[in-house]
Amino acid sequence: MTPVTNRQLYLHQRPVGVPTADDIRLRTVDVPSLADGEVLIENHYLSLDPAIRDWMSGNDTYMAPIAIGESIRSTTLGKVLESRHPDFVAGDYVQGLAVNAWEEYTVNSGEVLTKVVNDGKYPPRYYLSIFSGAMGLTPYFGMLELGRPVAGETVLISAAAGAVGSIAGQIAKIKGCRVVGLTGSNDKASWLINELGFDAVINYKDCDNLAEEIASVCPERVNIFFDNVGGEILDAALLNIADHARIVFCGAISSYNASGPVPGPYNYWQILAHSATVKGLLTTNYVDQFDAANAEIRGWLESGKLRFNEDIVDGIENTVDAYARLFSGMNKGKLLVRLAAADQQ
Amino acid sequence: MTPVTNRQLYLHQRPVGVPTADDIRLRTVDVPSLADGEVLIENHYLSLDPAIRDWMSGNDTYMAPIAIGESIRSTTLGKVLESRHPDFVAGDYVQGLAVNAWEEYTVNSGEVLTKVVNDGKYPPRYYLSIFSGAMGLTPYFGMLELGRPVAGETVLISAAAGAVGSIAGQIAKIKGCRVVGLTGSNDKASWLINELGFDAVINYKDCDNLAEEIASVCPERVNIFFDNVGGEILDAALLNIADHARIVFCGAISSYNASGPVPGPYNYWQILAHSATVKGLLTTNYVDQFDAANAEIRGWLESGKLRFNEDIVDGIENTVDAYARLFSGMNKGKLLVRLAAADQQ
Repeated sequence: MTPVTNRQLYLHQRPVGVPTADDIRLRTVDVPSLADGEVLIENHYLSLDPAIRDWMSGNDTYMAPIAIGESIRSTTLGKVLESRHPDFVAGDYVQGLAVNAWEEYTVNSGEVLTKVVNDGKYPPRYYLSIFSGAMGLTPYFGMLELGRPVAGETVLISAAAGAVGSIAGQIAKIKGCRVVGLTGSNDKASWLINELGFDAVINYKDCDNLAEEIASVCPERVNIFFDNVGGEILDAALLNIADHARIVFCGAISSYNASGPVPGPYNYWQILAHSATVKGLLTTNYVDQFDAANAEIRGWLESGKLRFNEDIVDGIENTVDAYARLFSGMNKGKLLVRLAAADQQ
Repeated sequence: MTPVTNRQLYLHQRPVGVPTADDIRLRTVDVPSLADGEVLIENHYLSLDPAIRDWMSGNDTYMAPIAIGESIRSTTLGKVLESRHPDFVAGDYVQGLAVNAWEEYTVNSGEVLTKVVNDGKYPPRYYLSIFSGAMGLTPYFGMLELGRPVAGETVLISAAAGAVGSIAGQIAKIKGCRVVGLTGSNDKASWLINELGFDAVINYKDCDNLAEEIASVCPERVNIFFDNVGGEILDAALLNIADHARIVFCGAISSYNASGPVPGPYNYWQILAHSATVKGLLTTNYVDQFDAANAEIRGWLESGKLRFNEDIVDGIENTVDAYARLFSGMNKGKLLVRLAAADQQ
């Protein structure tokens, strides 16, 4: 039966700092009827990604900002309920890349909608975690295309227990590197070392001088810094880069909640002093390699070389609180919200 | 006749801001006698380069700092007076790369001393300007190896009338690019356009909003930004970079005289938003290509494709005042000091 109402999170006002329930509010709207070429999706899982915070800010960077009153744009995983698009039929599981929203039902024009090839081996929600752009492909291309790891090199990862960092580090391990993670709790540090195989982890909340701590853990300096955080952590890393280092600029979560202009790294000069390279990462540059990348990631999963964690929160009404955990460093792995419809299969 | 005294500029105290005659003082010292393997050089020209300011600061970056009391390390061009080194004989013209000093006579161990192959076509001092690392090879490798210009692209150059910028721009023109310079006077702007063939020049001292001015002069955005300046000029350029832009990080003259930490670019995020790359340039990475590069530069000079200017100041006692002109943007082309010995040939 076609649903008639849709609970939806929308941008009520632009957040100052970490978004709250004042900024992002829940409302109930009608489910529109489908036009030709459109697909009605019942969302099962919402993806909670740091980049969405940037779209809330009104800055026009690589994606248009979310307008006031608009639903919160997101990648979601769901099931097709109705289709007037030739490529999709009811019952298909689909992933809508950064064009769906934090809502129960989405009408999608089919343009950036991917059918989930579900061979029964993995739950469809893996297409929102390990097989997604944000968790699997971002570290894959960031590490391999921009980092270009060479066996024996030292690789440093910020936000190492996050969705991207935890995979980036393991890919560097697969390539024979020594991998050091930066994270904010001893629990996550143990997980990275004991379960994911990191060589060392620094709890940055637990040390007086991060640059000195990195120097002591990375005596041969850092060949690749995979940066999700920016700010003081980037500055500490820059003081420890090796000659010809590659800095993979994947994100800058430390600045996403800033209300004024945020300076770049104070140690920017080190880039020149060490003939280093800073490379901005946008996964969408590699669309034509997505299938091959996902095949390789599957292979690593199946051979046990790659592990991951999904940090799942239940209920659309808990989305905003869950989202705040990304910025306090409390999530371990990929943060997802499971909607009620996911349980009814 | 072997000289017995040597007038020498030395670091009396670390400068705060632009170096003055209080920081860098002249003294007369004895000329030491030569040990085996050493060469006594009569300096004819001193090279005045922005990087020397960094060596005065006590920061340990890619070169050791100049110690208090030490002579000011520099590249010089001079004539061998006496040699106990098998590769050099009296009368040779030699260039000592960043190991000689601002002084009349230098004793050099021959390690980074290059004999000037003087076929009579060019004055030996060209080895301190267009055939030097700092003027010729830095923009050559910066533009070709890091910038990688493609015909039709837009190239923006900061400090465009400086030694490096003026050559970098012309190399991009040779490669078929549209070249836009940033400079601080209308006189230099005319020189860049009318004599060096730049397509457009912005006098940054003469515009209210540099980012908007760049946008208006570079409507197709900037594919390569060759940066000698950093700071606000880098920030304005970052707001105008094209997707996949290359930022050649050659220098940051705006910050060399700062006494405290200087923030990196506020628009650092644009590197990610445009999949851009920032590449730190050290010419010494390309030592094995120096001969081939100089041969190509000579070819361009002889065919009239490359022009340059030497901004020559006379007298060792005027060196400190001349050096300050680098930081107020008053020099046009390569800044050199000519010593008395250069006139006596």
